[in-house]
Amino acid sequence: MVILTLNCGSSSAKYQIFDWDSQEVLAVGVIERIGQNVSTMEHAAKDRDQYESEISCPDHKAAIQLIVKMILDSDYGVLDSISEIRAVGHRVVHGGEHFVKSVIVDEQVLNIFESLTHLAPLHNPPNILGIRAAQQELPDVPHCAIMDTAWHQTMPKHTYMYALPYAWYEEHNVRRYGFHGTSYLYTAKRAAALLGKDPMETNLIIAHIGNGASMCAVKNGVSYDTSMGLTPLEGLVMGTRSGDVDPAVINFLITQVGMDIKDIDTALNKKSGILGITEKFSDRRDVRDAAAQGDERCRLAIDMECHRLKRYIGGYAAALGSVDAVVMTAGVGEMAPHIRRGALTGLDHLGICLDQQKNDQGQCRNGEIDIATADSPIRIFVIPTDEELVMTEDTYALLNGTYDIHTNFTYNFESPKYVNKSRHERLQQDLENKPYLKDLIVTPPKA
Amino acid sequence: MVILTLNCGSSSAKYQIFDWDSQEVLAVGVIERIGQNVSTMEHAAKDRDQYESEISCPDHKAAIQLIVKMILDSDYGVLDSISEIRAVGHRVVHGGEHFVKSVIVDEQVLNIFESLTHLAPLHNPPNILGIRAAQQELPDVPHCAIMDTAWHQTMPKHTYMYALPYAWYEEHNVRRYGFHGTSYLYTAKRAAALLGKDPMETNLIIAHIGNGASMCAVKNGVSYDTSMGLTPLEGLVMGTRSGDVDPAVINFLITQVGMDIKDIDTALNKKSGILGITEKFSDRRDVRDAAAQGDERCRLAIDMECHRLKRYIGGYAAALGSVDAVVMTAGVGEMAPHIRRGALTGLDHLGICLDQQKNDQGQCRNGEIDIATADSPIRIFVIPTDEELVMTEDTYALLNGTYDIHTNFTYNFESPKYVNKSRHERLQQDLENKPYLKDLIVTPPKA
Repeated sequence: MVILTLNCGSSSAKYQIFDWDSQEVLAVGVIERIGQNVSTMEHAAKDRDQYESEISCPDHKAAIQLIVKMILDSDYGVLDSISEIRAVGHRVVHGGEHFVKSVIVDEQVLNIFESLTHLAPLHNPPNILGIRAAQQELPDVPHCAIMDTAWHQTMPKHTYMYALPYAWYEEHNVRRYGFHGTSYLYTAKRAAALLGKDPMETNLIIAHIGNGASMCAVKNGVSYDTSMGLTPLEGLVMGTRSGDVDPAVINFLITQVGMDIKDIDTALNKKSGILGITEKFSDRRDVRDAAAQGDERCRLAIDMECHRLKRYIGGYAAALGSVDAVVMTAGVGEMAPHIRRGALTGLDHLGICLDQQKNDQGQCRNGEIDIATADSPIRIFVIPTDEELVMTEDTYALLNGTYDIHTNFTYNFESPKYVNKSRHERLQQDLENKPYLKDLIVTPPKA
Repeated sequence: MVILTLNCGSSSAKYQIFDWDSQEVLAVGVIERIGQNVSTMEHAAKDRDQYESEISCPDHKAAIQLIVKMILDSDYGVLDSISEIRAVGHRVVHGGEHFVKSVIVDEQVLNIFESLTHLAPLHNPPNILGIRAAQQELPDVPHCAIMDTAWHQTMPKHTYMYALPYAWYEEHNVRRYGFHGTSYLYTAKRAAALLGKDPMETNLIIAHIGNGASMCAVKNGVSYDTSMGLTPLEGLVMGTRSGDVDPAVINFLITQVGMDIKDIDTALNKKSGILGITEKFSDRRDVRDAAAQGDERCRLAIDMECHRLKRYIGGYAAALGSVDAVVMTAGVGEMAPHIRRGALTGLDHLGICLDQQKNDQGQCRNGEIDIATADSPIRIFVIPTDEELVMTEDTYALLNGTYDIHTNFTYNFESPKYVNKSRHERLQQDLENKPYLKDLIVTPPKA
């Protein structure tokens, strides 16, 4: 039996087909520029040629149809019949305060997602469109919703409330929600496994750094605080998002500069962060290369990003009281040693001791590595995240009736013996190409 | 000879008369509700009865005249002739990037303050009004400006820049400025003296917590980062200000709730913070008492304020690399053990070890105390701030031509032998009333 997972953005649809019996990914792909004149589709399946082509894809319904067709295609596909798909897991960005865990979607659940659209006007509508389209194509299987916000519903009130008029919370739901929850769940459980500790006794600082970026303080295995807030704008310096800024800047721009709130909002989300400072790049690799060639604005952007990261790491270390490990994940966290260096160097007085050589060597998306010095009181792990695997396990467990909130549920990937099969082969290639990686690889302690 | 210092707010004027020869405060006072139907004046002078009365005070010009009259009054005054005042020091909130230190005010300087009004529309106009009025009353002496922002002009670019479109900095001066600079200068120099260290080799985390509140990371004696930003809204949870909040909240309130930016700005500055959460108190003593009687909202406000403080302390500890002392100052910092307890308990892993008993005993506005455990790697000082003294010393040195930026200038209060005479008598009373304070008092090490 296989599980399909879907992640529908405003103009994209990502998918993965996972074979539960072999515990392997059969295919992954993405359709982009949905609704534009020319859309694109990429598809990669086990033992098949890569597919990459321009296509016509006017809406999310068409996207789901194209995905199903591709999965069944005789050249590129991986299934003989659509009936092999036994359940679908959908990523949903905003579950508000209604959901502390994943759920099977019914009309009532969809109504709640729709009622939350004002909190995530860019994200929830395409998520809902994707669910409705997939329900039409696959009407006989359960569709499950895995929400970015669910993981953070354990936050105590004094970390999720803003110091704003209380009525704004009661009447308009203004509070910190946090995002990237699925990634935090995966990396938190894996970090506990690598430490050989009960997840519910583990304190972690996890930095999920991609184009979007956030950090999570994990206390006794659950989310205690996080840097993103009502929306994914708050917190760290991101590719194009500002992160933290004096909220008075907006009133200043409106009343003193004469700008429009819509333009300001677009600028904060799309023209700020690394792009705002450098005025040319949002990709950290471009910024790194230009900084190395003396570009001052790129140097500034790196210093700003690293200073913000360092401040959050220290802040969460203080809030947690004790820390077992710092975890870096997602594109930049896994593959940008220069950002990790800037964020983690000089923290020895907090017990976080970076091994500079291991950090420089540690670029790995298929294996878990430890880049702290041998005697560092706090470990520093780089853990490739796997949000699709969480979605798949949640969906399978919901289908089977065995699912519960993560504090009462054990994922397969929590096992000390767990091997991420889909990455295992690629990891062997990595180790052949970069034999020094072997010394960085970390595995759960033997019982 | 005496120095007059003035601090003019939108509806208030505070003043102090300092006798340079005896190094003592001769009189302090404040006029409040300037421009309202009924204004009030309080005045307290050495060896004189207290004065407190309703008065008529239509504008800042009238206020300055009333202050001069009071200083010369036969019953309440302290001077025989206005000519004894040899210079006036004025507090100015916003000096933008133009001033790294205090200056003698001339027309050009006033023009710069006026050009910065858009950055501090509530503060700079009354500051300027006060200077102009005082110049008319005291035309023959130098008037000096001591700016809240000057201390922070040492911040490196990667801590003062926001991750916003760079043009907003170049064209509209949008950046972090920081405030409370005069208080940080005083407490940083005093902390170095108490540590027996060269100020330029001292790393500190200073929390100035009053109704407004901010924190400063001091690296090698100069401001390295601070929590207030473009305006005094950013950062900590304050009496009525929100501090940090997802900047997207404002767009949400405008576009999803239909609120007006002016109302939002007023709410963020006047109806948020402690008042916003409790919906009844902004004074921390009221909040503490109600929380003790089981008021949940007050308990929440305390927990939120302390969590934010703790996060900033940890963040700055990380950013600084090493810390010599944490310093608490201003009304709440000096007199609210329950806030210090919440902010500083559980930081032993960072080397910050609070002595709970000393903290509970340590309520003192006239002496400097140490509330860390004896073996704490990092000291925790409570240092009563004295912004007027910095203003007075700056003004005297400007008058005498001996003034320079604080990195090239030694204040009298930096001396290991310095005694704050104006407080010395009150401290003896404190020690009589609370003999246990004696064990907390800290003095500079003997050379």
